[in-house]
Amino acid sequence: MSGTISLFEAYNRTAYPLVGHGKRNIQVLKDVLSELDGKMESDVYGSGELIEDFQNKIAKFLGKEAAVFFPSGTMAQQIAMRIWSEKKGIKRVAYHPLCHLEIHEEEGLKHLHGIESLLLADKTRLIQLEDVLNMDTNISCLLLELPQREIGGELPSYEELEAISAFCREKGIILHLDGARLLEVLPYYEKSAEQICSLFDSVYISFYKGIGGIAGAILAGHEAFVKESVIWKRRHGGDLISLYPYVLSADHFFMQRQDRFQQYYEGAKELAGLYNDCQGTTTRPVVPVSNMFHIHFSLPKAKLEPVLVAVYEETGVGFITRLNHIDDETSYCEVNIGDQFASIPKEVIHQAFHVLNQKLQEALQEK
Amino acid sequence: MSGTISLFEAYNRTAYPLVGHGKRNIQVLKDVLSELDGKMESDVYGSGELIEDFQNKIAKFLGKEAAVFFPSGTMAQQIAMRIWSEKKGIKRVAYHPLCHLEIHEEEGLKHLHGIESLLLADKTRLIQLEDVLNMDTNISCLLLELPQREIGGELPSYEELEAISAFCREKGIILHLDGARLLEVLPYYEKSAEQICSLFDSVYISFYKGIGGIAGAILAGHEAFVKESVIWKRRHGGDLISLYPYVLSADHFFMQRQDRFQQYYEGAKELAGLYNDCQGTTTRPVVPVSNMFHIHFSLPKAKLEPVLVAVYEETGVGFITRLNHIDDETSYCEVNIGDQFASIPKEVIHQAFHVLNQKLQEALQEK
Repeated sequence: MSGTISLFEAYNRTAYPLVGHGKRNIQVLKDVLSELDGKMESDVYGSGELIEDFQNKIAKFLGKEAAVFFPSGTMAQQIAMRIWSEKKGIKRVAYHPLCHLEIHEEEGLKHLHGIESLLLADKTRLIQLEDVLNMDTNISCLLLELPQREIGGELPSYEELEAISAFCREKGIILHLDGARLLEVLPYYEKSAEQICSLFDSVYISFYKGIGGIAGAILAGHEAFVKESVIWKRRHGGDLISLYPYVLSADHFFMQRQDRFQQYYEGAKELAGLYNDCQGTTTRPVVPVSNMFHIHFSLPKAKLEPVLVAVYEETGVGFITRLNHIDDETSYCEVNIGDQFASIPKEVIHQAFHVLNQKLQEALQEK
Repeated sequence: MSGTISLFEAYNRTAYPLVGHGKRNIQVLKDVLSELDGKMESDVYGSGELIEDFQNKIAKFLGKEAAVFFPSGTMAQQIAMRIWSEKKGIKRVAYHPLCHLEIHEEEGLKHLHGIESLLLADKTRLIQLEDVLNMDTNISCLLLELPQREIGGELPSYEELEAISAFCREKGIILHLDGARLLEVLPYYEKSAEQICSLFDSVYISFYKGIGGIAGAILAGHEAFVKESVIWKRRHGGDLISLYPYVLSADHFFMQRQDRFQQYYEGAKELAGLYNDCQGTTTRPVVPVSNMFHIHFSLPKAKLEPVLVAVYEETGVGFITRLNHIDDETSYCEVNIGDQFASIPKEVIHQAFHVLNQKLQEALQEK
């Protein structure tokens, strides 16, 4: 019966999964490799055409002098913080309380690099110009994440970004972009990656978020900075003899999807609108500014999950893959729009939302 | 003409390359994936059957409670040193002056972990029991590398290993095995991996040396140690969303080659014998104790390279891929025996060595 299978399992059985690009199975890599000549030579410890060409391509895309491929953003960003901290002689950097470095890296920045963090704003909102103007400027670097994922993917206005950047330059504070989802915010800003990156001294982007690769990241900036990051990459154990499974898939999906982010953004706005029309359901942001948003439900996880599983089974539509506990009354989840949303007939989606709304109403009445 | 192409290029053009398993091109990964069902699900941040089954398999093979897959040995070993240093409250570990951590990792151990090294023995020889008995015991951990790669792949006797292990246990010093090439030494010792590993508290093995995978390593030991290493793996940026390209290839080639190391070892002894019969050429060790050895030539790199290229072109046999400068009189290289050596007809090899020896004699006379 419905209650016996997990939300994730039920989602994977649906004919019409709404989020992401599709399953993360090994077929993804098989497809990438099937188009390539087997005689293509592996990269070797960061050298070789395969990796260097891709690094150059992304450096150019970001408008930076140089770029280096990393196995992960965790590694790339800690290294950026270390280089800037040593350059400035201040082992302290500022970022949001829900920054990846603060909550997802087991305090690597502290334990490996001895760098402290200065937290700006609070967990409920973006860092604003005001926060920056009033912060303790005894820091080497300010890290901004665009969009701020953990609060649903919000963005400051471009003018606010420019003002923050100008202030940092004036004060000699390095500005680093956590651009894990940089392509995701270009449609909202109506700017090129190069324009946005020009406000920052260093930039990290990820290749397995909206781009949908296997794993991997790029760190970009001035030549001297990037050169130093390569030394730290070796220290971290990230200078692998072969990174090509990640480089090739990053390149493949970057080329395939770089022009689809407007479509994902429009899809997110459409989908968020449908959720906001359901009872006891609101999205954050109400109108998305990228391909992602959060959904907040006025039902707790334990009550909502069986409702969702029943809707998936009745409609064949998979809404979300997992649900997070907030408290006994509420729950939330993250949604990312990829290739799948646009491929599903509109009437299927609307009919499924009709069923979802009915079942939510019933569950809310029982509450 | 011969002089205009590099040794590596000339080697790659030969019909009979003597060393390794073959070219490190992307066909290696294509072959691994072609045998697998595309529906196989990716590992997700260290979880999932794909990665857990392999970790369990290798833990069992090594006779350890638990094991965890790492992108690199650099990361795995620094983390082992950090965990042991914190456990003992001593930020100092002992190893050979040519240990990977000392010469190939840009001093990551110092810069990321603040751990100092105590160097035992010297660059020309193995760490001996005597060195261990007389060392400053104010260390948390002693790291032994089997075989000691940078001096040609030498090994202590098994009895000496046992005595070192017993001494460390008596003194409360942790003993860690750099077993990057562990399978490579089993035929010489006539021991199982489990037997050798039982002398050590923690073990690292590599999957792209003799096993011939794409990249990746395993760190194994007691459950509590391995659990802690997973936290550090995340701190280092090694807990990737998907490690499957490395895990699958490691598993594939481990299964394919684990029983071939006796053959590689015999091949190494045979090939070293042929080199030792050539003028101005000696191997180290004279009789190999694994699938690897070094060759020392009484000719400098600049003089020897064109000689080798000419021999490759005349005979179709590729001897070595690269040559290292020592001084104006001598040079050396490393040789690893893999699948290729046994597939080449003996008469082709003997004829090629005849030509090599002649050309070496001529070059030595001109000197």
